[in-house]
Amino acid sequence: MARFPIVDADSIKKLTLDAEILLESLFPIMRSITGSGVRQTHKILHGFIPLVTTEVASGTKVLDWVIPEEWWIKDAKLVGPNNVDIINLSTNNLHVVNYSTGVDCEIDLEDLQSHLHSIPELPNAIPYLTSYYSKSWGFCLTHEQRIKLIPGKYHAFINAGHKNGSLTYSVGELHGTTDKIVLFSTYTCHPQMANNELSGPIVSCLAYKLIEEYLPKRKFNYRFLFIPETIGSITYLSRHGDELKHNLLAGYVLTCIGDSGPYTLKRSRIGNSLADRAAKVVWKDYEAKNECKVLNYFPMGSDERQYCSPGFNLPVAVLSRSIYGSYSHYHTSLDDLSFVSVDEIVNAALRILKLAFVLENNSYPVSLSQYGEPNFSSRGLQSPLGAKRDRDLEVMSIKWILNLADGEHDLIEISELSGIDPVIILNTTEKLVSNHLLELKTH
Amino acid sequence: MARFPIVDADSIKKLTLDAEILLESLFPIMRSITGSGVRQTHKILHGFIPLVTTEVASGTKVLDWVIPEEWWIKDAKLVGPNNVDIINLSTNNLHVVNYSTGVDCEIDLEDLQSHLHSIPELPNAIPYLTSYYSKSWGFCLTHEQRIKLIPGKYHAFINAGHKNGSLTYSVGELHGTTDKIVLFSTYTCHPQMANNELSGPIVSCLAYKLIEEYLPKRKFNYRFLFIPETIGSITYLSRHGDELKHNLLAGYVLTCIGDSGPYTLKRSRIGNSLADRAAKVVWKDYEAKNECKVLNYFPMGSDERQYCSPGFNLPVAVLSRSIYGSYSHYHTSLDDLSFVSVDEIVNAALRILKLAFVLENNSYPVSLSQYGEPNFSSRGLQSPLGAKRDRDLEVMSIKWILNLADGEHDLIEISELSGIDPVIILNTTEKLVSNHLLELKTH
Amino acid sequence: MARFPIVDADSIKKLTLDAEILLESLFPIMRSITGSGVRQTHKILHGFIPLVTTEVASGTKVLDWVIPEEWWIKDAKLVGPNNVDIINLSTNNLHVVNYSTGVDCEIDLEDLQSHLHSIPELPNAIPYLTSYYSKSWGFCLTHEQRIKLIPGKYHAFINAGHKNGSLTYSVGELHGTTDKIVLFSTYTCHPQMANNELSGPIVSCLAYKLIEEYLPKRKFNYRFLFIPETIGSITYLSRHGDELKHNLLAGYVLTCIGDSGPYTLKRSRIGNSLADRAAKVVWKDYEAKNECKVLNYFPMGSDERQYCSPGFNLPVAVLSRSIYGSYSHYHTSLDDLSFVSVDEIVNAALRILKLAFVLENNSYPVSLSQYGEPNFSSRGLQSPLGAKRDRDLEVMSIKWILNLADGEHDLIEISELSGIDPVIILNTTEKLVSNHLLELKTH
Repeated sequence: MARFPIVDADSIKKLTLDAEILLESLFPIMRSITGSGVRQTHKILHGFIPLVTTEVASGTKVLDWVIPEEWWIKDAKLVGPNNVDIINLSTNNLHVVNYSTGVDCEIDLEDLQSHLHSIPELPNAIPYLTSYYSKSWGFCLTHEQRIKLIPGKYHAFINAGHKNGSLTYSVGELHGTTDKIVLFSTYTCHPQMANNELSGPIVSCLAYKLIEEYLPKRKFNYRFLFIPETIGSITYLSRHGDELKHNLLAGYVLTCIGDSGPYTLKRSRIGNSLADRAAKVVWKDYEAKNECKVLNYFPMGSDERQYCSPGFNLPVAVLSRSIYGSYSHYHTSLDDLSFVSVDEIVNAALRILKLAFVLENNSYPVSLSQYGEPNFSSRGLQSPLGAKRDRDLEVMSIKWILNLADGEHDLIEISELSGIDPVIILNTTEKLVSNHLLELKTH
Repeated sequence: MARFPIVDADSIKKLTLDAEILLESLFPIMRSITGSGVRQTHKILHGFIPLVTTEVASGTKVLDWVIPEEWWIKDAKLVGPNNVDIINLSTNNLHVVNYSTGVDCEIDLEDLQSHLHSIPELPNAIPYLTSYYSKSWGFCLTHEQRIKLIPGKYHAFINAGHKNGSLTYSVGELHGTTDKIVLFSTYTCHPQMANNELSGPIVSCLAYKLIEEYLPKRKFNYRFLFIPETIGSITYLSRHGDELKHNLLAGYVLTCIGDSGPYTLKRSRIGNSLADRAAKVVWKDYEAKNECKVLNYFPMGSDERQYCSPGFNLPVAVLSRSIYGSYSHYHTSLDDLSFVSVDEIVNAALRILKLAFVLENNSYPVSLSQYGEPNFSSRGLQSPLGAKRDRDLEVMSIKWILNLADGEHDLIEISELSGIDPVIILNTTEKLVSNHLLELKTH
Repeated sequence: MARFPIVDADSIKKLTLDAEILLESLFPIMRSITGSGVRQTHKILHGFIPLVTTEVASGTKVLDWVIPEEWWIKDAKLVGPNNVDIINLSTNNLHVVNYSTGVDCEIDLEDLQSHLHSIPELPNAIPYLTSYYSKSWGFCLTHEQRIKLIPGKYHAFINAGHKNGSLTYSVGELHGTTDKIVLFSTYTCHPQMANNELSGPIVSCLAYKLIEEYLPKRKFNYRFLFIPETIGSITYLSRHGDELKHNLLAGYVLTCIGDSGPYTLKRSRIGNSLADRAAKVVWKDYEAKNECKVLNYFPMGSDERQYCSPGFNLPVAVLSRSIYGSYSHYHTSLDDLSFVSVDEIVNAALRILKLAFVLENNSYPVSLSQYGEPNFSSRGLQSPLGAKRDRDLEVMSIKWILNLADGEHDLIEISELSGIDPVIILNTTEKLVSNHLLELKTH
């Protein structure tokens, strides 16, 4: 059992720089659930952490689904009656409905309308829309633009199409000494939005680096998954579902985790799995100051819908800040670089290091002195001056741990019941073990 | 499994008219736990729905009780010192203590006082009192009247008495294809009060008609019981207690259910029986807007005291608006026709149709695609346009049902957990069954 | 089963007088965990109730601990540069760190400071400090005094020391007819403070007298323990731990129970033991008016830390008013006679009589008429006049008891579920037994 590592200021500065570079290089890329944008994204991530990339051919059956054809897009524009460019893909990748078919036609405004998408309540936002499993074409634009459109003939041009190809996903894994897995799953299919979803992949990169450096002796395998949302987790589960059912200790979907809103922990379907319990104590200090909400599982959202489908029912929770659907910028062009913060991205990665530390060192303590309290002062575990009015947090944690050290409570539960930070509980536990007051069991 | 029926405006108009006629014809009748008023009441109800009436002879032993003698009353008055009628039964049936013995005597005001009952805090209300199991006579009057009484000789005259006879109860039953019973129990012993208790019998009549018409294919037997309170349920249980212990799926006492106050669901003694769970989701929308309170079981009240006695411990809850004891008009002449509303009576009957629909169609769904989500768009169950910011209630209900369709959650629990109206859950379930995504189990 | 006894005004006057005498005679004594002050204290208590006193020799191993040497102190003073007495033990026993070694030396203010203890936030309070297991000397003084100290030579004089001797504890026990024990544990090691801790020993004395007089026919043994805190319960458990594991029905630590603050019930580690449940209903009326808080177990505090150590895990709760650590006077000279009230001390003892009555008479009632309600009016258990708007508390308690009298609920739980005072529940139960409506089981 190790003491919780202190990440020094230089390391934090370096992580912050990494986050900045990743944000700026990944943001402008046109991504989708398949295709060259995804591959380019994974290549950039691979520049930071080692990734193993897998391609799964279009047409492959994965659970109830089939891998779709790969999408390509070169350019796109919508030209108005007076020959003015209304929309140009080069301005913003959200302007074309993702997975749109190609089109090149003259069309009246009236007929064009059913191919246009905007949000009246957010007049300066371009919405993000997809049409993966139904062939159609469409443009997304701000409502301000849309209401200025004048009647007449428009030229709709989308140089895009579908072809046999493959779906791309990548895995970065830090190996441990057992076969147990801690999973972090995030997605790389969203084009040109920042919180949803560059925050998840970038936090994953930084967390990988932190765990690699600060938890060099690991029991568990820390597996970071970069997939397209939904079809990616379906694909991964079709191949690794059995492995995860056997070996997954705790899993987390990382999404919308780069803004400055309160954290959100969404429990797994199981509700009180190790994944849920560990996250709850690691974010307890945020919860105490109302900067973290804990939600029960609900079957809408991101890839947890697949991990937590009733057949798999894996211990996979969600770690977010302003969670999907809860903020007005969600799935629009307003979710841009100004909406996220590199400091918060680094903060999230540091919390994940703490989470990993807690998972690594969790155990069921068994007191070697269960009948009455041991004499703490004679062991130098308590001030020799008794009856003091102030309470010392370490002494309190000693008392909590030993009182609950009957082999039925793990350290996470002791942190939960005592309200004491899990790192203090773990560090004190180490001290009690070296004082021969505790033995540790793993269940 | 059928879709939830829509009750058209004409049917509602007809039900409203029925309710009005029943209220006006039943209100003036002098009722008690036995006797001609009860029989007349049941005859009028029988004009609306088919009833089978049973007579149980005075002196019959029923559980710990004995059916009392039948009571008859012809007229009654209290004449003052200056020969003025103070009280006349023809003015209000509450003026005589129910089950009073006959009397014909001159009596001083001083001695008369112990035979008079009024409510100082409600000076213009005549209280409702009974003396079923102790022979005595008495008059009820407003406190305003009482304080004006002058000293002197009064003539107390009650032309009433007891005789061998019988206790009357009636059952209206809509048969189903199984032997399972859904019970609605209400009482017809209260004279000349409206909410307590004409609302229960009238709501029962309308609910009978609605279930008969709109749930023509029924699994369950819908049994409507019209009994005198307490001694009636004791009598019925002494004869049908075993049957109910075997076959009662869910039961409800209907009482005080015609006013405009918030609904009150009082749980059964079991607390979380099917009766309780079904009512909770059917009234969930009211609860959400603070127009329905859910109370835990307490052993005071109406016939639930018998159904929920520890030996029977039946799944019988109570459905009310302003429940007994909670409103100031309770058990007084102020609980008159102006206190109830035919619209609310019809509303309650419609809710009971919904409750019956939920009970009929409840089941334990088992997803045929438990590993990962099925591809909804390819089955036309979701808009082909993905990533939309708005959530569709039907799509949400699809996701909730399939996520919980592990055979361990019934549709009522899925409605409870999702917060989605049970009718939407049931209708969506039907759709998923026709799409071969679900099978239904009944436990 | 007996009716709850009424303690008359004369008895209360006598108890009040006892409390006053005890407070005044015990307050000035210099106590510690061992020594002559403790023996003198127990001798005074023995003048009120019969006590059996035990001495355990210094050096005896007790669980993980060793009984320390006995401490003696004759006098002590701190003399300032201009020969003025700064501190004199005769002024206040708290002035010397309890268990201080002897000293007689000239010392500069600068060096003296590490031997001085005061509380800046409470400038006129002398703190209470101990140094049982580490040999050192020190003075406690008000912060006001301390900041006035001028540089120069001081004469530190403490005429005290340690010697082979013994630890003293006493037991007062009221015997019953079974081997089950109800334990009240309090401590007599604190010098010259009132709430913490003369209130516990004095309440114990009065409660002993009340139970002796008013519960003369007892099933249980009421054992009152007067020990030094921590080392005393360790010592007692090392000798009687097995007996308590077998026979302890319910136990309570009595501490800080003489002031006028709200009561505090701290649950045992078990959380829902008979000790916890009984106290909760006995103090329910206080809780209802926010004059009693119920706390979950935490492993800081008094002797419950030993009784509730995981190996023993005894059903021992804590009964307090302003509990240790929660009030600013705690462990200072401000916790003096003006902080406690003899009336509240008597009040606490009367509550403990009620608690003993509830424990003595608790049982699992079994209704002899479980099918339907029994006919109450025919048995004279309810007014013959029915349908009354008001509810009678005894009639309500009859209905609650009989409804829950299935042999699975004890009377304490019935009090909890009904919200009715346990004495009403117990008295009504006795009435129902004499009416042949109930049998009582003890589990």
